[in-house]
Amino acid sequence: MTVPVFDEAFREQLDSLFLWRRDVRHFRRDPVPESVLDHMLALTCSTPSVGLSQPWRFLRVDDEARRNAVRAEFSERNAEALAAQRQSDSGAYAQLKLAGLDRAPHHIAVFCDPDPSQGRGLGRLTMPETVQWSAVMAIHSFWLAAQAHNVGLGWVSILDPERMNSLLDAPAEWRFMAYLCVGYPDEEHNTPELERRGWEKRAPERQLWISR
Amino acid sequence: MTVPVFDEAFREQLDSLFLWRRDVRHFRRDPVPESVLDHMLALTCSTPSVGLSQPWRFLRVDDEARRNAVRAEFSERNAEALAAQRQSDSGAYAQLKLAGLDRAPHHIAVFCDPDPSQGRGLGRLTMPETVQWSAVMAIHSFWLAAQAHNVGLGWVSILDPERMNSLLDAPAEWRFMAYLCVGYPDEEHNTPELERRGWEKRAPERQLWISR
Repeated sequence: MTVPVFDEAFREQLDSLFLWRRDVRHFRRDPVPESVLDHMLALTCSTPSVGLSQPWRFLRVDDEARRNAVRAEFSERNAEALAAQRQSDSGAYAQLKLAGLDRAPHHIAVFCDPDPSQGRGLGRLTMPETVQWSAVMAIHSFWLAAQAHNVGLGWVSILDPERMNSLLDAPAEWRFMAYLCVGYPDEEHNTPELERRGWEKRAPERQLWISR
Repeated sequence: MTVPVFDEAFREQLDSLFLWRRDVRHFRRDPVPESVLDHMLALTCSTPSVGLSQPWRFLRVDDEARRNAVRAEFSERNAEALAAQRQSDSGAYAQLKLAGLDRAPHHIAVFCDPDPSQGRGLGRLTMPETVQWSAVMAIHSFWLAAQAHNVGLGWVSILDPERMNSLLDAPAEWRFMAYLCVGYPDEEHNTPELERRGWEKRAPERQLWISR
């Protein structure tokens, strides 16, 4: 296989992929073809992982009763979060996620096997979190692969991790990472919804780049 | 701005970007132009983050004395890891990282501000790790942006996080995430070095995709 040389035209499209990749809350109801989901998964599996451990586990949630249980769990945790935060506007933003849970045609929970035999422990003795971090990078790959198919993804994080294992009948040792709503977006934007709605805006790049 | 539609030709190149992105240990010594590093950083800053908190902090390590201190820290922690692991072959793989530290023209440490005011806490009450995970996704973006410029990156994780804050004079509250060696790779491969050398091989995709 020849080593690929990436050119300026590709980099412009890659910039555009990153720029338009959003945390989507508003989905169309039509499903994503299985062949597209398969391709997203294939790209995801070429994610880097510590010691080549590939600790990510993607769990599709198709069962309606389980989906309803997740929705109820989100509502409960969200109510607690609102009570703790006392920010009058945060309720509105959290509600957006509920819209995603209601309409997205695909639900995918992502777990991490925290002590996989694959990889034989290499590279993670001083920083065992690198196993979880490998699963985080896999979620990011899945997100980018989705966007490359013009598919949107919304990451729901206001959930109790241990409760999710029991709701989804996942092995007790797996660590819950993310609940992903997946489907074609109802509308597309190149600025985050939180920015468009005035919750927060992005920082200048230079502020995040320091020399020593 | 028009919504971009990504096509099959772009997706093939994206697959190729993921497929050829490696954890690089063998670097050429010539530096990467500053304009390229700037572009990599710009793409990185469009990474998703919980509540739009952008908690990543990229710290360039140009000072030779600091680089030597990091190299010494790696050697110490690596010796400990080897003693703990008792796998006769793991020494050889860890040594590869040393080669990267010696030759890579650019060293970049990545930290996370664990409690950024930006984002106002949204989305991270039940899973506070999502702040760190946002920084992990930024590292992944930086890695992909590098590969798109045909630049290689090696992630060194056998380091003591707290020690890294003091070696690099980083604020005590920042959490050390990664030490990145960056430069043009000496050789390129579409299979991981750990797989080529027989340490581990990748799992079939289907094994990581489960239904409920």
